[in-house]
Amino acid sequence: MNTALSPATTAEEVDRVARVAHEAYLVSASQTPATRASWLTALAEALRGEADELVGIAAQETNLAEARLRGELTRSAFQLDLFAEEVRTGVALDAVIDHADPDWGMGPRPDIRRVNVPLGVVGVFGASNFPFAFSVMGGDSASALAAGCAVLHKIHPGHQKLGLRTGQIVVEALETAGAPQGLFAVLEGREAATALVDHPLVKAIGFTGSTAGGRALFDRAAARPEPIPFYGELGSINPVFVLPAAWAHRSKEILQGYAGSFTMGMGQFCTKPGVLFVPDEGKAEQLRTTLTEALAETPLAKLLTPGLRESFGQSRDELAALEGVETLVAGSDEEVPAPTVLAVDADQVRKTPEVLHREMFGPATVVVRYRDAAQLPALAELMEGQLTATIHGDEDDDSTALVDTLAGKAGRVLWNGWPTGVTVSYAQHHGGPYPATTSNTTSVGTAAIGRFLRPVSYQDLPDTALPPALQEANPWGIARRVDGRLESATTERSTR
Amino acid sequence: MNTALSPATTAEEVDRVARVAHEAYLVSASQTPATRASWLTALAEALRGEADELVGIAAQETNLAEARLRGELTRSAFQLDLFAEEVRTGVALDAVIDHADPDWGMGPRPDIRRVNVPLGVVGVFGASNFPFAFSVMGGDSASALAAGCAVLHKIHPGHQKLGLRTGQIVVEALETAGAPQGLFAVLEGREAATALVDHPLVKAIGFTGSTAGGRALFDRAAARPEPIPFYGELGSINPVFVLPAAWAHRSKEILQGYAGSFTMGMGQFCTKPGVLFVPDEGKAEQLRTTLTEALAETPLAKLLTPGLRESFGQSRDELAALEGVETLVAGSDEEVPAPTVLAVDADQVRKTPEVLHREMFGPATVVVRYRDAAQLPALAELMEGQLTATIHGDEDDDSTALVDTLAGKAGRVLWNGWPTGVTVSYAQHHGGPYPATTSNTTSVGTAAIGRFLRPVSYQDLPDTALPPALQEANPWGIARRVDGRLESATTERSTR
Repeated sequence: MNTALSPATTAEEVDRVARVAHEAYLVSASQTPATRASWLTALAEALRGEADELVGIAAQETNLAEARLRGELTRSAFQLDLFAEEVRTGVALDAVIDHADPDWGMGPRPDIRRVNVPLGVVGVFGASNFPFAFSVMGGDSASALAAGCAVLHKIHPGHQKLGLRTGQIVVEALETAGAPQGLFAVLEGREAATALVDHPLVKAIGFTGSTAGGRALFDRAAARPEPIPFYGELGSINPVFVLPAAWAHRSKEILQGYAGSFTMGMGQFCTKPGVLFVPDEGKAEQLRTTLTEALAETPLAKLLTPGLRESFGQSRDELAALEGVETLVAGSDEEVPAPTVLAVDADQVRKTPEVLHREMFGPATVVVRYRDAAQLPALAELMEGQLTATIHGDEDDDSTALVDTLAGKAGRVLWNGWPTGVTVSYAQHHGGPYPATTSNTTSVGTAAIGRFLRPVSYQDLPDTALPPALQEANPWGIARRVDGRLESATTERSTR
Repeated sequence: MNTALSPATTAEEVDRVARVAHEAYLVSASQTPATRASWLTALAEALRGEADELVGIAAQETNLAEARLRGELTRSAFQLDLFAEEVRTGVALDAVIDHADPDWGMGPRPDIRRVNVPLGVVGVFGASNFPFAFSVMGGDSASALAAGCAVLHKIHPGHQKLGLRTGQIVVEALETAGAPQGLFAVLEGREAATALVDHPLVKAIGFTGSTAGGRALFDRAAARPEPIPFYGELGSINPVFVLPAAWAHRSKEILQGYAGSFTMGMGQFCTKPGVLFVPDEGKAEQLRTTLTEALAETPLAKLLTPGLRESFGQSRDELAALEGVETLVAGSDEEVPAPTVLAVDADQVRKTPEVLHREMFGPATVVVRYRDAAQLPALAELMEGQLTATIHGDEDDDSTALVDTLAGKAGRVLWNGWPTGVTVSYAQHHGGPYPATTSNTTSVGTAAIGRFLRPVSYQDLPDTALPPALQEANPWGIARRVDGRLESATTERSTR
């Protein structure tokens, strides 16, 4: 069945599964939305059905808490159901029909119709920190399958057993649901990683991981004889800006929320708030006490892997050693590291902006004390591209300029909330200017499906020769734009 | 005014205009759709108002016929008007609103809203072969301005005077319309080209040109510390497949259309049909006679530049020298080259598929004789990515497999027409798998605007802090998707 379950996949094996996957994609591409949607719901059912076993393996391999893992599995299954519904509406197909028009302003217009078609075989790299949501049947796999692509998934070595077992469940569920053989397979090891990015039949890559590793693969994808899109999520600091009135009214509540958010999953979230800007009121001791108390209540655990623990300690110590950086709450170097809070003045940050550029992947963060809220947009400009940026403000706070600046820096701007926790919905955007991501697309939410599609226009084709999505009678009942006007899908949508 | 009108723009000058352009983009980004649309219609008016002068300069510099140039200018002005209308509907903003939902399947959903924002400063490279439609105020510039970006346009040296004069008209029209100073500027020369691709404030590139030159700039854009999207249109052969019944019924008409299409603009179209697949009936003499007669009626002219004439002759001679390739209609090497038709058998093409990979940029083309229409999908598979692929067929012809194959190879599939002539509309897709283009986007039609936008989500923001496009009351009356359902724009659209 899933013949790629060897300890490491060779380049020859990648070639073989890529060829099978390509044939499977050709079959998938010709299915109705209803059929493809049924595969996705079958996958959701299978994940839910095997939740106990999968969560057990994941807990053992990742040190993550069971409740968190169950939530992540629920999210992944929900995502498949939501994408199934989205496939039925056809919104991602972006079907557009322009009827022939002899009076079109630039000269007679032929009948021209456009629809999105799947790219082909997609390579997906699993993330260390989300064994379900960004791994074997996570967002990239779900969106690529929803698009009609085949998926070759490179298992993250941090949760190999889970990856192999999830792969088996996925392959079996797809087969039972009637999907073409080889539509999905898992791969392992370094040789598989590069062979996947290089393979001529692979037409796009989805990646979640480090900036260094991601950039190397991005460069490799761009250097191919036929370059392919590389949808990489690399790194993010996720700054949080606390405005003066909010700080005056509820600093304790904000610090408690902050402590909970930056230690969530032991700080191993891509959306972990890594910098908190607060008014400088000279109350260092009060800040220290509140944070220490809040952190005393957060559950601690080992980091995902020994390698991550080492690199976490290193990045934290390097940041702590930068000029003007003091340690507000000292962490620890034990196997289960206690959280660290550093602090620095905004004036210092202007001199050494690298304080704002270093991601510490683990339970550590930096508080930046500013003197004047009018400085905040300029301080925000010192940051690189971000997945998220958050403002805590009250009615009396002036946030206009800061919201504008942050929209230019980040993919998601939050108000009075915390960036950890990324809902899967129609409006979600999980991505941001480089290095947050390598493209202007999202890896979370229904819009993620569009990454694995490309448009094709058909000019003057007989109706019967057109793909069903573009036939005049709209046999699939999907959403379309006709002569410039939007028309909703006629399929029933379940109420959520 | 337009201070970049020096013979060659230095890297320092590029830096200066890029900084000014960045400030102008920040102003443009905050305008209402109506205001931005008014700038586009002002540009359309200005182009139409100066048509006589511009067409005169273009005719002198490019050797293209006046009627063709007038049509191209009309098209460019129409494009600006259409994009203005599209800006008013807000479709390109892709505004999506998900209201908070405590019962969302994966856990409570916050209020989350997404809208597209402009990327920043965009670099555009003018094309040699379309002095209006793909040059100073062509598709890339129009779509980037419609998106709210600033544009720095690198003038093609093949029509420098036209570029400078068009640049003046554009800058003056934008100023009169109230657009921020520096929103548009023209640059010249090689130093400007690389400085433009490298500049940190430049956030995307639009390019139309050769595969070699385009790939070099694509690689440069990908190698930046912050990689940026490179929307390049590089090269295309645009195969045409004539099916047996169509050939039996109207071979003469098809050959006449073919002769007219591949010599249009002296074969200097990116959509020129470079290969014609026809049934092999052993009637070489009849084919030769019909084509020779049809070609005798086509108007000839000098090619765009002496350099292009030299490289055209070279690529044609190299292709003619490939094994099994015969010359059906001999061209010439005069200053005004007579058209060339080569011919080859399909069996030979399978052995030397490079016959199908070489673009001859000028009036030359290849006829491929096939024995069995069932071979056509496999022959099509030998081709690289294409902008267009065309089928000529009758009711008795079976085209299903071929349409499917071509949709996988090309961005636009035509039926009983010719690929030269690309309408600007909602459904148009002008792009295709590499090397036709370097991304899965279009450079023609309203969808081109989306290339210069990126999404930003806003989570739980107070209504007044949201961009107008996302405010509950929809003050701009734009098209939006609310809780999964599409809602049309309430602005009036003109009837075309």
